[in-house]
Amino acid sequence: MRPSGRAGDELRTLEMTPGFAKHAEGSCLVKFGDTHVLVTATVEDSCPPWLRNTGKGWVTAEYGMLPRSTHGRMPREAAKGKQSGRTQEIQRLIGRALRAVVDLRKVGERQVRVDCDVIQADGGTRTASISGAYVALYQAFEWMLKQEMITEMPFTDSVSAISCGIYKGTPVLDLDYDEDSAAETDANFVLTGKGGIVEIQSTAEEEPFSEEEFLRMLRLARIGCDQITAAQKKVLG
Amino acid sequence: MRPSGRAGDELRTLEMTPGFAKHAEGSCLVKFGDTHVLVTATVEDSCPPWLRNTGKGWVTAEYGMLPRSTHGRMPREAAKGKQSGRTQEIQRLIGRALRAVVDLRKVGERQVRVDCDVIQADGGTRTASISGAYVALYQAFEWMLKQEMITEMPFTDSVSAISCGIYKGTPVLDLDYDEDSAAETDANFVLTGKGGIVEIQSTAEEEPFSEEEFLRMLRLARIGCDQITAAQKKVLG
Amino acid sequence: MRPSGRAGDELRTLEMTPGFAKHAEGSCLVKFGDTHVLVTATVEDSCPPWLRNTGKGWVTAEYGMLPRSTHGRMPREAAKGKQSGRTQEIQRLIGRALRAVVDLRKVGERQVRVDCDVIQADGGTRTASISGAYVALYQAFEWMLKQEMITEMPFTDSVSAISCGIYKGTPVLDLDYDEDSAAETDANFVLTGKGGIVEIQSTAEEEPFSEEEFLRMLRLARIGCDQITAAQKKVLG
Amino acid sequence: MRPSGRAGDELRTLEMTPGFAKHAEGSCLVKFGDTHVLVTATVEDSCPPWLRNTGKGWVTAEYGMLPRSTHGRMPREAAKGKQSGRTQEIQRLIGRALRAVVDLRKVGERQVRVDCDVIQADGGTRTASISGAYVALYQAFEWMLKQEMITEMPFTDSVSAISCGIYKGTPVLDLDYDEDSAAETDANFVLTGKGGIVEIQSTAEEEPFSEEEFLRMLRLARIGCDQITAAQKKVLG
Amino acid sequence: MRPSGRAGDELRTLEMTPGFAKHAEGSCLVKFGDTHVLVTATVEDSCPPWLRNTGKGWVTAEYGMLPRSTHGRMPREAAKGKQSGRTQEIQRLIGRALRAVVDLRKVGERQVRVDCDVIQADGGTRTASISGAYVALYQAFEWMLKQEMITEMPFTDSVSAISCGIYKGTPVLDLDYDEDSAAETDANFVLTGKGGIVEIQSTAEEEPFSEEEFLRMLRLARIGCDQITAAQKKVLG
Amino acid sequence: MRPSGRAGDELRTLEMTPGFAKHAEGSCLVKFGDTHVLVTATVEDSCPPWLRNTGKGWVTAEYGMLPRSTHGRMPREAAKGKQSGRTQEIQRLIGRALRAVVDLRKVGERQVRVDCDVIQADGGTRTASISGAYVALYQAFEWMLKQEMITEMPFTDSVSAISCGIYKGTPVLDLDYDEDSAAETDANFVLTGKGGIVEIQSTAEEEPFSEEEFLRMLRLARIGCDQITAAQKKVLG
Repeated sequence: MRPSGRAGDELRTLEMTPGFAKHAEGSCLVKFGDTHVLVTATVEDSCPPWLRNTGKGWVTAEYGMLPRSTHGRMPREAAKGKQSGRTQEIQRLIGRALRAVVDLRKVGERQVRVDCDVIQADGGTRTASISGAYVALYQAFEWMLKQEMITEMPFTDSVSAISCGIYKGTPVLDLDYDEDSAAETDANFVLTGKGGIVEIQSTAEEEPFSEEEFLRMLRLARIGCDQITAAQKKVLG
Repeated sequence: MRPSGRAGDELRTLEMTPGFAKHAEGSCLVKFGDTHVLVTATVEDSCPPWLRNTGKGWVTAEYGMLPRSTHGRMPREAAKGKQSGRTQEIQRLIGRALRAVVDLRKVGERQVRVDCDVIQADGGTRTASISGAYVALYQAFEWMLKQEMITEMPFTDSVSAISCGIYKGTPVLDLDYDEDSAAETDANFVLTGKGGIVEIQSTAEEEPFSEEEFLRMLRLARIGCDQITAAQKKVLG
Repeated sequence: MRPSGRAGDELRTLEMTPGFAKHAEGSCLVKFGDTHVLVTATVEDSCPPWLRNTGKGWVTAEYGMLPRSTHGRMPREAAKGKQSGRTQEIQRLIGRALRAVVDLRKVGERQVRVDCDVIQADGGTRTASISGAYVALYQAFEWMLKQEMITEMPFTDSVSAISCGIYKGTPVLDLDYDEDSAAETDANFVLTGKGGIVEIQSTAEEEPFSEEEFLRMLRLARIGCDQITAAQKKVLG
Repeated sequence: MRPSGRAGDELRTLEMTPGFAKHAEGSCLVKFGDTHVLVTATVEDSCPPWLRNTGKGWVTAEYGMLPRSTHGRMPREAAKGKQSGRTQEIQRLIGRALRAVVDLRKVGERQVRVDCDVIQADGGTRTASISGAYVALYQAFEWMLKQEMITEMPFTDSVSAISCGIYKGTPVLDLDYDEDSAAETDANFVLTGKGGIVEIQSTAEEEPFSEEEFLRMLRLARIGCDQITAAQKKVLG
Repeated sequence: MRPSGRAGDELRTLEMTPGFAKHAEGSCLVKFGDTHVLVTATVEDSCPPWLRNTGKGWVTAEYGMLPRSTHGRMPREAAKGKQSGRTQEIQRLIGRALRAVVDLRKVGERQVRVDCDVIQADGGTRTASISGAYVALYQAFEWMLKQEMITEMPFTDSVSAISCGIYKGTPVLDLDYDEDSAAETDANFVLTGKGGIVEIQSTAEEEPFSEEEFLRMLRLARIGCDQITAAQKKVLG
Repeated sequence: MRPSGRAGDELRTLEMTPGFAKHAEGSCLVKFGDTHVLVTATVEDSCPPWLRNTGKGWVTAEYGMLPRSTHGRMPREAAKGKQSGRTQEIQRLIGRALRAVVDLRKVGERQVRVDCDVIQADGGTRTASISGAYVALYQAFEWMLKQEMITEMPFTDSVSAISCGIYKGTPVLDLDYDEDSAAETDANFVLTGKGGIVEIQSTAEEEPFSEEEFLRMLRLARIGCDQITAAQKKVLG
């Protein structure tokens, strides 16, 4: 039995509110249960220096947590003067996940900067971020179409992400904080709408895990991402 | 006529939602129109080193803006590796404002850390922060009472804040971004529920201002803070 | 009775020595009693990026204290690797105060950088800095005239600053360190030679203050700034 | 055909020299072809603060590259004043990999700090680091045994790591720089001597990859790690 | 002929004003011609961690330049967020020079921190700093004697410093900025009152120099330091 | 008797391996006994901003130590976020030493960046670095000749460096760590192949030293540098 009372293959309540932010070209407030992330997408009319004169653009991401989004307060990274290794790992992951489904040539020499800020955390902030970031980026591309900065949507597929874990010996989907703290193994999967794998990160917290356990988690991830993909489609109309 | 269409002495729609954050000992989502600030209060069971063995506690504040809370995106301070002068000014102001209505001896050798994070900005983020911080701090003190960490509420008064400005020659209350950008003079007032003045910051943006103009702004501030005080009382029951 | 033995409306001995620094285009050693600040003004033949092609220039300020200018030694900010919030607040204030009396169009696309370094501190370093900075900036503009970089003085007025406080219930002018440490309220006023108000910063240290107390401090500030203005005129010939 | 001329399941020449460093309690110079990493293990007689009074110790890792270990020179991180996101990701990975095969209770309240410094880079520096770090840590534990700081070896298993990729559609083992730059998918596997999985990181560089491709890479990784495990056993006697 | 018109073995006008700073336990304003350095000595009642329980104390130094002490303005190190290599070199040199004539056991487990701040620079700031620092430190030790923190003066000798150079082929003493910029070789000598050598730093700016040239500079340095030593004795009474 | 058993004028075993690094334009692994430094030289096709349009190039150096190159582990500078004063002193010294024997006009508007990384330390890392850096830089210039970036070798002389000290009252050559820790005086000499002096740094660790002691150290340094110069010639063919 999971602490959350959910079935092993059951997602938390999923909510996505596109256009949540007044000023941004694209945005989405995404909720995986009590994990709430505000994602905004900002269109910048220049690309990073290494892409100049290539005709290609870039999509990048930044990630942050409000200090008291967590159970105990985490020191503010701006006050400490640097981003933690965890923060950098996550924002690099989000950027890679988005770029995997974008044809950067169709973006032109511009950059879209996606900010994922965790308002409240209860496990799975990186997977919620990626899933919501797709929606915010979609809106930003629509805005670029309207501005005639681009002539077609640059997406090659959609993208979503979900965590799985081995909890008391059983593979379960979409870990919340209580489950995550106690899981023996923790894995994050980034999948495309068509079922391609973009990224796998799987880590043994205590004991090494087996290939079979891994494959059962992958199977759960497919179930979860299919539902997230459906929700993304729905909110994007 | 103000760009917002409001009367000179009219506040924006004011909303305060105490207890907005799941994990914090106290919290408040405060909205001054389109300016939205999430305030959390964290109780720490130790005080800053300079207060050890004095029997006194401390209340301090930190302030941040989400990168795309503003019209254009502002670089993330955590990524730049330092907080701007403006950020530091504001968080020092919030801390002073709260401490002015708290008897620190009644807090004991503990610290309450108040985080004000701007989710969306449309002018007046520092005054919204102070007004909401009072509510979050009130909740945190109530939590301390329940935990029997303290035996009575440490407040000596309530506190709220509002901005005023001279806009096209006329003093107006509670500037939004469009008004603020065009105002000749910008002033922030921090007042107590009983009408005492805690802080005045008044700055000529272009032309120096006169004593009379200043006094008319102070009068407007009293009108605004009375309404905020009433709203604080209401949400705190 | 004030610790300094001064009357309530009495300034400390005021001394301003223009041209104190050998290398700078403008400079002033300003003394408010035992508070000594060396101000230099450096003319830079380029303006900040955001003013390019506007025809306008900029005046900015930096502030620092020698580590042992104070009663106890303060850690060197260069060694700590960052400027404190207080330092940043003060240097932003000095810059705003100077710009309020300068027509930036007449400066052209250049920048004057004013450095205020506290050699010895005994209260009122920010007001001494502003008062001396006007003199140093005046000299720098004279130098620019001689170099034919500008064709007329860009000042629209003069500017000076003074602190006031409520000390044991009585409003007093130009607080020294002993008075400042014990004052219930501390206010800084920046006024122009013609009597316009450029900036007011007034803070309750313990108890909130009343409107009447505030107005009595403002009245004292006018008395003090009139004398500083006269002294500025005298040393500038 | 691979640029290196190797068969798809062929490792580069593997060399491990334990005890390479004169001063360290444990060390290993590990070479995966032209990728050379010097690993040292330092025993510290105190543990991180969060483990005090738990009876448990810690194993942590740091990673760095000499500026000209790479094809073009990379700016020195010490001169830039911060470690890149990539560096932090890698050193966190190395630390997790080692801790997965150590019983931290048997280490006692001490810390072993493992430094992995890349002398020359040609792809696969993180997997070479992990594989060599096991050897250096083994030596450090032996040193602790001799010093009677511990009474038995704290390892629960051995650990090694290898990269795989999809190169021109074919899964290949142990990518060098030329192969890595051109691979469609890049994966790193951390496996124990007994075959347990400690960590999987698999990333699509351009196109998403399929489950089948992933499983073929995992199979190659098992072949590679078996050989590294054998080599570790041999050099450790 | 030297640009300054001085004879080859002629010092600039030397002035030392002990007790210049109101707050410090020891201080000295030292002038070598137009080079003016304010030195303060602060007594701290604790020693650095590595000396605890050794019975020994420490003397350390910090160095800084006011931004416009130089011909052109130098960026403020506090604003840049780090001290330059030159600054660190100089402050390490000053500390070593002072410790060479102090019996640290007689200081007890305390630290004296010497701050050397250049008010105006015209060459030779490090040698002026050392020469003035001896005077400030002497005063601080006298203050400690009065406070009965120590029972005898901890000095084993006095210390002073001077620069020499090869200017247009001729060795000259005490270079000012114009001479220093044009000198082929630049050397700094730190000597004790009894004639012992504490430190030599000699650098070829363009051409290597010969042993004979070096020895002629050393001879000049002895002449200069004898005069500085005499001046130190005189001002210390 | 020296701890190392060497005669007073005897160098440690000296080894220089040019071309040690696969990727760099020039490189040398230099060993002074157990002190091992890997030097690489990187040719950059642009010069520092202050040399643009002068026709001159630049040679600069950076220095680092692997954390466990030393007896005890030194914190990684990249992790601490800054280079120590000692590191900066040494890298400035290496740069000056190389530039003293290079005609920068012959380099053209380019920069050669020399990295000296200490793999293992046993005293004398800065002198080993300089001696090896000459070899690496020589190779880089040869590479530039082959690339027809330059038309003749820019060297005016060769350069090498060695440490000397007063150990138990006796001047000795090429101190290892044990000798260095116990020496009363420590000196570093940078000499050219033709015998010119480029830099002298001589420091009393406890007692001041005499002119005679200094001259005896200088004599030893000439003996040592002659041998290093011969070794450099030999390895460069």
